[in-house]
Amino acid sequence: MPRPRFSPVLRVRDPRLRRRGLAIGIDIGGTKVAAGVVDAEGHVLRHARRATPGAEPREVERVIVELVGELSSDHRIASVGIGAAGWMDLDGGTVLFSPHLAWRNEPLRDNLERLLRRRVHLANDADAAAWAEWRFGAGQQEQRLVCITLGTGIGGAMVLSGRLERGRYGVAGEFGHQILVPGGHRCECGNRGCWEQYASGNALGREARELARANSPVAQELLRAAGGDPEAITGAVVTELARAGDPASRELLEDVGEWLGIGLANLAAALDPGTFVVGGGLCDAGELLLEPARRAFARHLTGRGFRPPARIVRAALGPEAGLIGAADLSRVSLRAHGAVRLG
Amino acid sequence: MPRPRFSPVLRVRDPRLRRRGLAIGIDIGGTKVAAGVVDAEGHVLRHARRATPGAEPREVERVIVELVGELSSDHRIASVGIGAAGWMDLDGGTVLFSPHLAWRNEPLRDNLERLLRRRVHLANDADAAAWAEWRFGAGQQEQRLVCITLGTGIGGAMVLSGRLERGRYGVAGEFGHQILVPGGHRCECGNRGCWEQYASGNALGREARELARANSPVAQELLRAAGGDPEAITGAVVTELARAGDPASRELLEDVGEWLGIGLANLAAALDPGTFVVGGGLCDAGELLLEPARRAFARHLTGRGFRPPARIVRAALGPEAGLIGAADLSRVSLRAHGAVRLG
Repeated sequence: MPRPRFSPVLRVRDPRLRRRGLAIGIDIGGTKVAAGVVDAEGHVLRHARRATPGAEPREVERVIVELVGELSSDHRIASVGIGAAGWMDLDGGTVLFSPHLAWRNEPLRDNLERLLRRRVHLANDADAAAWAEWRFGAGQQEQRLVCITLGTGIGGAMVLSGRLERGRYGVAGEFGHQILVPGGHRCECGNRGCWEQYASGNALGREARELARANSPVAQELLRAAGGDPEAITGAVVTELARAGDPASRELLEDVGEWLGIGLANLAAALDPGTFVVGGGLCDAGELLLEPARRAFARHLTGRGFRPPARIVRAALGPEAGLIGAADLSRVSLRAHGAVRLG
Repeated sequence: MPRPRFSPVLRVRDPRLRRRGLAIGIDIGGTKVAAGVVDAEGHVLRHARRATPGAEPREVERVIVELVGELSSDHRIASVGIGAAGWMDLDGGTVLFSPHLAWRNEPLRDNLERLLRRRVHLANDADAAAWAEWRFGAGQQEQRLVCITLGTGIGGAMVLSGRLERGRYGVAGEFGHQILVPGGHRCECGNRGCWEQYASGNALGREARELARANSPVAQELLRAAGGDPEAITGAVVTELARAGDPASRELLEDVGEWLGIGLANLAAALDPGTFVVGGGLCDAGELLLEPARRAFARHLTGRGFRPPARIVRAALGPEAGLIGAADLSRVSLRAHGAVRLG
């Protein structure tokens, strides 16, 4: 019996989104490339992953082709979405710049469409994650959604009226580089005092290492967990200890949470979202991070008491948000000016 | 001969905007209420003004009725737009909060429509000014426009894809209350370190008074201009002296311009506009303010060198932008969720 041309699992709630075929989403991170077959409801039907093969563009393309080959053996795939740290031009054809990879004005979409013989959509990783949370996660139904991804730095994206707002040149959402402390910590973007130097996994690790190097008595648990070497302490170590009850680690998370809340209050002043969805690895700390963030947000929101405040909620989709969003964007994308718009 | 039912002057470039009738725009400021009859091309055909009659809502309504009566004697008026500092709800019916006036959840639109027997549109004053600059001024054709009005504080607004972006609850655009210097100068919003405490007419005056109180030799021109009384120095005094060549006043404007540029760089990181239009009284300083702002912007823009930067241009419509925008919004307004949208 012939295999059905299209997978029968597709049942989409919003009829405008009904698209035939499955999509592959690929999330290119600094250390690994995660890929999956994603259906129209955002379920990941099959996974695959590779180590990130250095920065060389042809090598990254080779891995993408490999992953698509592997994942499309059992599924009929209509399109491929790629999420990566970096700036894609508005048309979605060219990577303007990527911090980890050697892409500079790289015509990645054309290269990949030629290699894969499928429609390819390029997305910034934070945009992809935000889109996934709006479509299938913690931001569903929200008319004005701002997503923050807390990893080594801060990723940001906006979905306004069902439209991914990417700015005039496609590089909006770099919330982590709002200067919050003029003259403060050096940022890899070349400035000082960027928000991501105060509210990220890197910031948490840096503060903990400084505490440990000062040989403070309160840092003994941290030092023990890192085998006595202050330089071995990372944000993940702090989070784990905080969850186990270590008071110093909880204080460090409170400090980072407070900076998180202040930066969110700045974004609320500018954007007035209904919901902030906060995701990324640092969110493994859960309420140990978000509770102090909400407190600082409430204390620093301009006009507090005279306006409805935004909700601050944790992302629902976890580390797969990026690949789910990239896959979905490849399915629903319209190559419109400045916007991928639904409805 | 009967008067024609509609004024024959209406010739609108964009056919979607062709509306019969003229509109009155009213801009309610802290000290004066400025009103005008505005045609569909943004021309002000007739002016009127009153002193702001205290904060009492009924008194303000009385002045509005008076102005509309005066201005509609010679023109057939289809609608009235009101611009005021404050937050209007998304529906545009209610003033949630106004800093200078005693409006708190005031159903101003219904009150005025009953009194005026015309369609009334309420707008935040910065939204009205931005709309006017997008429709008729320095922001025409811009797909991603951010407007900044520098007066005693900072007003802000966004026009994205021809849509006034007002946020989830109608209170977006409060860029002046991004916290830029944690623990810095006290702001009337209740926070410390808001941008408008560093880049506004008030900030300019405060810095100049401090310089004069320190009896610095460089402040002698400032003191002389203020009759020897440091407390009499205002931002306008500084601007005037700077234009006349006083070096200290030029330095003070440079400092304010630098803060302006840093704040604009933060907004560019988040919003990636194609153009910033900068208006308001402080812009009387012209390039003495904008040139250092552009320099600081270029120095602090995250990703500089890897992205096209936004233009920073001076507003074109001057102090009438608010009333022109309010009038035009009353003509084209669609009471849509979160947006007045054209096209």
